[in-house]
Amino acid sequence: METPCSIARTLEVLGERWTFLVVREALAGTTRFADFRATLGVAPDILTNRLNTLVEAGVLTRRPYQEEGKRTRHEYHLTPAGNELRVVLGALQQWGDTHRPYSKGPTITRRSLDNRPLNVAYVDDTGHEVPLNEVRFIRT
Amino acid sequence: METPCSIARTLEVLGERWTFLVVREALAGTTRFADFRATLGVAPDILTNRLNTLVEAGVLTRRPYQEEGKRTRHEYHLTPAGNELRVVLGALQQWGDTHRPYSKGPTITRRSLDNRPLNVAYVDDTGHEVPLNEVRFIRT
Repeated sequence: METPCSIARTLEVLGERWTFLVVREALAGTTRFADFRATLGVAPDILTNRLNTLVEAGVLTRRPYQEEGKRTRHEYHLTPAGNELRVVLGALQQWGDTHRPYSKGPTITRRSLDNRPLNVAYVDDTGHEVPLNEVRFIRT
Repeated sequence: METPCSIARTLEVLGERWTFLVVREALAGTTRFADFRATLGVAPDILTNRLNTLVEAGVLTRRPYQEEGKRTRHEYHLTPAGNELRVVLGALQQWGDTHRPYSKGPTITRRSLDNRPLNVAYVDDTGHEVPLNEVRFIRT
């Protein structure tokens, strides 16, 4: 059944910790099953399941590749929709770094091409930041 | 054990669909148990559990209130940390509305005080939007 809430629909794809972490690795450039597995330390059956979910949801695409003398394997690449999850994951990182800080500081920082620090925030239609206390959620 | 990844630490608090939806209702102004329950259609034991998790994590505070002739009950109000989840939830809504659209359109829109449409995006240290393809995740 279709649910009207876009948060609930997004969580149908991402509503589980491993799925978010697979997307985090994909955003950091990981493409191969063995590399996802090594970085995340996740069981192979769970990883297969999460990669399939993300392919079906249009977040990742599967592409065959073959190394000399080996059988064909698959790489997983972010689609444009998957790349837009950078906003969601960045918002989660930022909140965690502020409100559940790691004793040794952030493990990932978000930077512009000229190395300036970036934040995830609300912007208006002219691309200017809007303070959080001026953001309204309107039911339509 | 402390985990270095801020996404994983955030999901220790929010890593489950009902928890996100409780926060969504709190951001929309819901404060009372009966109202959370009615809007979400969630079982009372699950709701109690999720509200307790959010209080322990510093996202909500519990405040007593008493109506004439009734026993003392509790209201749940967002802390400043809870209010900052508006960025995370807004990012989830926006992604869902774009990539998993509802046939009847978005149920919630994000607007400025003067009713302009708002987006969640990356901004630099001067409060100007930075395009997604210019955002880099740097491991520290």
